[in-house]
Amino acid sequence: MASRRPVCRLLSQSKANIQLSSRRSLATFPNPTASRLTFAPLKRYVGLAALGLLVSAPLAYKMAIDESLKMDSLSLAERDQQQKREQGVTDNSPMRLRMEKFIKEQQKEIVKELEKLDGTKFRTDEWQRKEGGGGITCCLQDGKVFEKAGVGISVVYGTLPKAAIMKMSANHRNIVVNGEVPESLEFFAAGLSLIVHPKNPMAPTVHLNYRYFETAKPDGTSGAWWFGGGSDLTPSYLFDEDAIQFHRDLKDVCDKHNKEYYPKFKKWCDEYFYNKHRNESRGIGGIFFDDLDETVSDKENTFAFIQDSLKSFIPTYVPIVQKRKDMPYTEAEKEWQQIRRGRYVEFNLVHDRGTSFGLNTPGARVESILMSMPLTASWKYMHDPEPGSREARLVDVLQSPKEWV
Amino acid sequence: MASRRPVCRLLSQSKANIQLSSRRSLATFPNPTASRLTFAPLKRYVGLAALGLLVSAPLAYKMAIDESLKMDSLSLAERDQQQKREQGVTDNSPMRLRMEKFIKEQQKEIVKELEKLDGTKFRTDEWQRKEGGGGITCCLQDGKVFEKAGVGISVVYGTLPKAAIMKMSANHRNIVVNGEVPESLEFFAAGLSLIVHPKNPMAPTVHLNYRYFETAKPDGTSGAWWFGGGSDLTPSYLFDEDAIQFHRDLKDVCDKHNKEYYPKFKKWCDEYFYNKHRNESRGIGGIFFDDLDETVSDKENTFAFIQDSLKSFIPTYVPIVQKRKDMPYTEAEKEWQQIRRGRYVEFNLVHDRGTSFGLNTPGARVESILMSMPLTASWKYMHDPEPGSREARLVDVLQSPKEWV
Repeated sequence: MASRRPVCRLLSQSKANIQLSSRRSLATFPNPTASRLTFAPLKRYVGLAALGLLVSAPLAYKMAIDESLKMDSLSLAERDQQQKREQGVTDNSPMRLRMEKFIKEQQKEIVKELEKLDGTKFRTDEWQRKEGGGGITCCLQDGKVFEKAGVGISVVYGTLPKAAIMKMSANHRNIVVNGEVPESLEFFAAGLSLIVHPKNPMAPTVHLNYRYFETAKPDGTSGAWWFGGGSDLTPSYLFDEDAIQFHRDLKDVCDKHNKEYYPKFKKWCDEYFYNKHRNESRGIGGIFFDDLDETVSDKENTFAFIQDSLKSFIPTYVPIVQKRKDMPYTEAEKEWQQIRRGRYVEFNLVHDRGTSFGLNTPGARVESILMSMPLTASWKYMHDPEPGSREARLVDVLQSPKEWV
Repeated sequence: MASRRPVCRLLSQSKANIQLSSRRSLATFPNPTASRLTFAPLKRYVGLAALGLLVSAPLAYKMAIDESLKMDSLSLAERDQQQKREQGVTDNSPMRLRMEKFIKEQQKEIVKELEKLDGTKFRTDEWQRKEGGGGITCCLQDGKVFEKAGVGISVVYGTLPKAAIMKMSANHRNIVVNGEVPESLEFFAAGLSLIVHPKNPMAPTVHLNYRYFETAKPDGTSGAWWFGGGSDLTPSYLFDEDAIQFHRDLKDVCDKHNKEYYPKFKKWCDEYFYNKHRNESRGIGGIFFDDLDETVSDKENTFAFIQDSLKSFIPTYVPIVQKRKDMPYTEAEKEWQQIRRGRYVEFNLVHDRGTSFGLNTPGARVESILMSMPLTASWKYMHDPEPGSREARLVDVLQSPKEWV
């Protein structure tokens, strides 16, 4: 059982575990009111299919306990491995296995499409965690079109200590077991993260991340679960038509699932990706959200939304890069891009909660976390764009986020 | 009196205030045991010369209170201004005025010497704080020898809120007034910071900072005081002779004042300037210390040590740059320098308490804080130096700090 495994495991975990779980344990977002949508019906997902158990009453609860004692020698990771081996992954599998399968497929698809666009192969590193799970980091560096492109997935099993459970319980009451905060809980986290920095300063940087988190109760059943993620655009030179297309595509996906998503998630994005020491946003927007759980929508519908969002990346971003990758540019425009890259580094190292928590945690896979850094960046003292210039226009928009659609 | 001024002033202060005071209010150093030297006699400095008061008994205390009530309309900054105007700054002036005069002279001297070496003039920006004090930031960018060199001083008057006083009282009992933590206290902070990034990858980056902090009691007398600072070297290519010379010069200055300083301050430097997410030091050493107060030595002797340390900068660093600035180097060596610059950025943005506190504080003078950033930096995914190479040798030393002298 979870409680028998050391609670300090979180402190020696690999990067993926840190990145994903930290976003949760540190999840007090800039505008907490934006973090909860209350219009959807609450449906409680009971993830017992994997164990062949049905729970409906105190007797059933006792059965579950007895069963979990028998399963004691198997961790959540081992049980999932066993199920994959014996039954494969189907629409009836637990969300953990379906999310893992989905992000692995998407990683392959995205890498394939970016390789086609660039004409350069990604380097692929697969890494394992001894506690269960691992990750695959794909990186393309100094290509023809891309200065750096990283697409990483991670699938992590671990144990949450009581302090982390306490924090999470503020947002997720299902994490509590029988009204009490347990000493420890097994958790599962899986996600896909990508970042693309094109060479041409007219082509925008893009970032995307979609993730799923779930806790297991001590009896092996699913406890709390939620999805989070988003995608945002960071141009050095602003083409309104690109910004509009990017946001229209995201809005279309959101609207298909819930008309309240897009306006809330666009606002959340503007608020989260904000370099407050510069009084400007990192980029020109996109969507960002967290805590999509049963208080917002049911698990199946939320997963469908996540799938549509992630699948929309290639058809949204690739046409923008195709239009911009061969545009002429001056040395001064390249320098401006380098200064914007510096601001990107500032956000990621100073303000991004996942990155800084990860970097401050011993044993993290640092190269996967810092895959998000640009290949090159620059800092110039007191560099102010000329009033009325294209550079000044970008800064104006970064200081006053725009509604593009 | 201090308590009448708003305690939230710290939150809207300029950069210098933040940088200096934050280092104090956040001052829980990596190795707390290294932060206190207990061998020196305790001498209590009573900074009343400025007010013409003598304090020896309860009666004198009452006199001081009455006097301070008369002075009530003048802040510490205004009183210091008045004294400078009427009497100038002499060896009998309060340490505040002497430290300010000293760092201003040193800034001019250092800028002059670096300009001579580079053949390029610094840009100078003077800025004021409406609450009192201000700073002078001198920056040279894209010169002949230096990619970027910044020399900044700041002289700041402000008010500490109770929470900050509470924290400081753990290390500085003199900050407490009559056994109680007051609601607020006026403070003074002054320091000189510099950072030099040469162009040639064979010439090392250097950082230096010396600072003085003092609180005023509600009656206008000096409360707690302490000095802090240090200087450290960050080469991309390691020349042992440079490392040895740099450390020998620092050791000579330290030994002149106290034979226990150098070993303690070298260790403190290795521990503080540590990129723990990389398991390597930022640079190859130097000295670093804080909390040099009356429990270590008296104020006069400590100021003499600070003066000698700061004055040793030019004769220590300039000869190293002169030897390296025209050495031939390859494109690959320049790239390695850029990667090391990236690590420098990582330390400053992720781990340096002063920088991150400053950047997270509204109203900070960001350009002065980030003057420390290199002009250019690079991040390469999974870049590992060849075993046995000069690059690998540097990493070895960064992973196992060396005693150079």
